[in-house]
Amino acid sequence: MIVVLAGGTGAAKFLCGLVQVVNREDIYVVGNTGDDAVFFGLHISPDLDTICYTLAGEVNSATGWGLANETWHAMDTVARYGGDTWFHLGDRDLGTHLYRTARLREGAQLSAVTEEIAEAWQIGVDLVPMSDYPVRTYLELLDGTEVPFQDYFVKLRHSVPVESVTFRGASQAQPTNGILEAFSAAERIILAPSNPIVSIGPILAIPAVRNALEKYRDKVRAISPIVAGAALKGPADRLLRELGHEASVVGVAGLLADVADTLVIDEQDAALAKSVSGLDVKPVVTNTVMSTPELAKKLASVVIDC
Amino acid sequence: MIVVLAGGTGAAKFLCGLVQVVNREDIYVVGNTGDDAVFFGLHISPDLDTICYTLAGEVNSATGWGLANETWHAMDTVARYGGDTWFHLGDRDLGTHLYRTARLREGAQLSAVTEEIAEAWQIGVDLVPMSDYPVRTYLELLDGTEVPFQDYFVKLRHSVPVESVTFRGASQAQPTNGILEAFSAAERIILAPSNPIVSIGPILAIPAVRNALEKYRDKVRAISPIVAGAALKGPADRLLRELGHEASVVGVAGLLADVADTLVIDEQDAALAKSVSGLDVKPVVTNTVMSTPELAKKLASVVIDC
Repeated sequence: MIVVLAGGTGAAKFLCGLVQVVNREDIYVVGNTGDDAVFFGLHISPDLDTICYTLAGEVNSATGWGLANETWHAMDTVARYGGDTWFHLGDRDLGTHLYRTARLREGAQLSAVTEEIAEAWQIGVDLVPMSDYPVRTYLELLDGTEVPFQDYFVKLRHSVPVESVTFRGASQAQPTNGILEAFSAAERIILAPSNPIVSIGPILAIPAVRNALEKYRDKVRAISPIVAGAALKGPADRLLRELGHEASVVGVAGLLADVADTLVIDEQDAALAKSVSGLDVKPVVTNTVMSTPELAKKLASVVIDC
Repeated sequence: MIVVLAGGTGAAKFLCGLVQVVNREDIYVVGNTGDDAVFFGLHISPDLDTICYTLAGEVNSATGWGLANETWHAMDTVARYGGDTWFHLGDRDLGTHLYRTARLREGAQLSAVTEEIAEAWQIGVDLVPMSDYPVRTYLELLDGTEVPFQDYFVKLRHSVPVESVTFRGASQAQPTNGILEAFSAAERIILAPSNPIVSIGPILAIPAVRNALEKYRDKVRAISPIVAGAALKGPADRLLRELGHEASVVGVAGLLADVADTLVIDEQDAALAKSVSGLDVKPVVTNTVMSTPELAKKLASVVIDC
């Protein structure tokens, strides 16, 4: 079994490579739910949905999130009323949030609902939220205000300076049933090329997850989402800098050294391999930019074999 | 000022006639909210929306509810998950429920949100929910189970025998601010041709509303939704019978006699005018079947002038 700790878009791309080299039934994905939010009373789990839609081959390929062939009629009506439309909810996608919300209101756990949704899209891999407990990522901005993740990421377009990041509820949260067993049974535990602070970070903030990964560190492989000092997408580079880390594979290695034996870095960062080693993390150099499905497959092979 | 107590489709049709004979700014509509429900966590106000969409000229004319040019992509996704789809929520329409829910969660009163929505559709008439307090219509079925209105009306297609009807919360509810003043100022208070039990009934179940209408009975005109012993739409005839009333204009007159001075009945029921008089309700006989906008206009004229 291969376990993958996953954020959104980057992780979803990687998983599309992984399913080309590992049987889907042998893949167990632990998704970040620190990004979860309630909009219009609906429970949204953006990272879980991005992974699900992508593995179903139904993701909007232009954006990397949401569904293909989407319409926006509900949001058009909200706009008519002057309501908030900065968090874009397509009509097809809305059905997922409606269903999830209804099930949660009935008393179902998020993990059970996630399984039902994944089943309906026939993604074939196990997809579980990191926890059935609510864990929510908040960012303290330099001006002292604290905002939930989606306000930072979508509304403010992650273009504001951040002072600190907190994961509310994480210290009390238990991992979803089955995660610790999956860690134990896994041949490899992979940290997908997701933002180490706000995508992988919330998962690692759950004490039992961190403890287990420290214990199984030998089989943990991380992939750097930072290439040549920049994030391929999103604010990972900026966040690293603002929170006092180097915006490079070295900064990523430093953040993950306690839990990851190996860090897969891009060829453009080969010169930094030695610095990664210096942090007691084995560097593996390969092409990590998944611009085609074939390159994603190649990356997955390297990560499985290293 | 003309005040109209209104349910859904029948009332909306009548209002389309009324706006042809009275200036929109002189019309004040009190909408039933006993049908309100929460689906998928969203607050739905079916009667208010039907009136709003109809007066905006945007109602789905085939169904009499919902929006024209509607798509159903969100519901298709819910169906994929095996979720409940018996309460049909179109994509355009969903935007209304999203907005309303978000505003209520912010602490806005339903009346304020209703005003915002009506404003956005530029309907020109005042539209207010009967109360900002939650009042919910429940039906006790003959088998002893008690179901909320939409379960009875939509899911069970109102084809099950009913033992009794209750309006939860009504006895504690206050009418929305402004309603009692509107009653006082009105030249006419019209009970639209809506189901007297489950559409007009919830409004009358608010003690201050009933007291005021009894006081202003002289200027109250009701229109029978029962024609020739049958409801033009919905279960009014059946409910009347099941709850021990005559399924005729006489049954309607009996139910409304305390609050209505006059009952407008259809020509097909002319022979029952005397029985209506016998209940101390003045019968006015005219064509009440609003099969065209012109006939709705004519009916409105009669009701205003009688």
